[in-house]
Amino acid sequence: MSEMRDLLRVGGDGPVNLAAIRPRSTPGLPTGDVVGPVPKAWGRAQVAQIGRELAEEQEKLAALAKTEPDFDRRILLVLQAMDCGGKDGTIKRVAGAMNPLGLHIRSFGAPTAEELSHDFLWRIRRALPAPGYLGVFNRSHYEDVLIARVDELVPESVWRARYDQINEFEAELVDSGFTLVKVMLHISPEEQRERLMERLTDPHKHWKYHSSDVDARRQWADYQAAYAEALAYCGTDRAPWYVVPADRKWYRDWAVANLLRETFADLRLSYPSATFDVELERRRLEEQVIPSL
Amino acid sequence: MSEMRDLLRVGGDGPVNLAAIRPRSTPGLPTGDVVGPVPKAWGRAQVAQIGRELAEEQEKLAALAKTEPDFDRRILLVLQAMDCGGKDGTIKRVAGAMNPLGLHIRSFGAPTAEELSHDFLWRIRRALPAPGYLGVFNRSHYEDVLIARVDELVPESVWRARYDQINEFEAELVDSGFTLVKVMLHISPEEQRERLMERLTDPHKHWKYHSSDVDARRQWADYQAAYAEALAYCGTDRAPWYVVPADRKWYRDWAVANLLRETFADLRLSYPSATFDVELERRRLEEQVIPSL
Repeated sequence: MSEMRDLLRVGGDGPVNLAAIRPRSTPGLPTGDVVGPVPKAWGRAQVAQIGRELAEEQEKLAALAKTEPDFDRRILLVLQAMDCGGKDGTIKRVAGAMNPLGLHIRSFGAPTAEELSHDFLWRIRRALPAPGYLGVFNRSHYEDVLIARVDELVPESVWRARYDQINEFEAELVDSGFTLVKVMLHISPEEQRERLMERLTDPHKHWKYHSSDVDARRQWADYQAAYAEALAYCGTDRAPWYVVPADRKWYRDWAVANLLRETFADLRLSYPSATFDVELERRRLEEQVIPSL
Repeated sequence: MSEMRDLLRVGGDGPVNLAAIRPRSTPGLPTGDVVGPVPKAWGRAQVAQIGRELAEEQEKLAALAKTEPDFDRRILLVLQAMDCGGKDGTIKRVAGAMNPLGLHIRSFGAPTAEELSHDFLWRIRRALPAPGYLGVFNRSHYEDVLIARVDELVPESVWRARYDQINEFEAELVDSGFTLVKVMLHISPEEQRERLMERLTDPHKHWKYHSSDVDARRQWADYQAAYAEALAYCGTDRAPWYVVPADRKWYRDWAVANLLRETFADLRLSYPSATFDVELERRRLEEQVIPSL
């Protein structure tokens, strides 16, 4: 199988054409023989299986951070998407298949008054995972070149300058042990309409619906243009962007799980070796008499 | 079935006798007919099933916090145990069966220099979950009346005064929307020895072993006494303590999952109702033409 990272990578070498990436496509999916008649069932089972592998890698990462004083490695998954793009679902399914102890999940909404009084990266820096963790950002500093641009929250000179600021910030993260996995979940406006309709139909989903979501659809093209430019400028070799076709939820989860698997594999983690005399400790433990027993 | 909370509750009405609670016992477990020939398999399946129910409750809790401005409800699971008592395993299995998006997990180790410069509750207050979350504390402020007492880190007058400080603090939490579920995972010294031996035998577990763990076993009786007193003083009606027999991992997980299920049930959560005109919104969405499509 090709590396999912190669198949889904965008940016770094000129414009990004999002319209050319079909949201219902399934790059990297094995042939029908492997997948069988119900791709969704296959995908779900694969995610559970990859989740167990990822949980093992998480444990190694945490173990190394706990035992090696200078260990600084950590992974940060950044999720961006249009409304209904599936950020929450991806976290539920992919992170949910892992060990919650090693996860560091942060969601970013509209900035608070305090956050606005600082530069746009201030709240991001405060939310970074410590070494040994898999961090997940549900939205991120990219909102500051997306909604900030489309809704004209700041002048163009301000948001445009942020591309370089983001690249410098992310290079600094990479230098301090981060591996960034930046993922845009790419849905079609038709799929978004269906998902909004579902939120209107299922009373258990009403709370996810906002009247403004329908109005925001008028800005679809503006958002796609903003995404394309951000991905082109900030899809650097050290901190690449991936576009995951996300109209099919099971494919989306499977693709993100694979991106994480490949990222962990690159780290070539192994459990720390004992810093004590194993045989001596076994004897001490065997021979010990606890007075209170 | 009796409420697990009634079966496992300790404290609030005089001394707690931990020695009378057998760590291999399984209070509340249904009869053999229900459980079948392999209790462990039954327990694991039950935890997965309860996990799905808890995830649904988590979603309601998050939904209410998102839509109701004054909503302040949240649950805080506090886990305490001797070394190898299974705190990490409980989080992996029980919290791992839920939705990571609604979890807020914090681990407390030896206090840092900065933390020591403040009162003992300072770092706890900073780590509290926001409304809408299920918080999990992996160790807690109870270390300040446990290890602080056994290792004589502070004079008796100081740790003894903390019982009242803790009760006041927890009453304040309850007044601000918290439901506290304080759990001591209760293992036997024999089980601890087996688990330590496993950490010495499996190279993947060497990193969890510390030479000092064996020495600390000499303080077993002191710790049990410290636990018993803390549970007696701080097992209040508003913030009760539960002792979960924890030599059998599958029972431990099943019991904690049930404590959480009963706690959520008491909250009687339901999904928020729509704050918009559902039919009007459906029509708006159906009739909308996106210029870019």
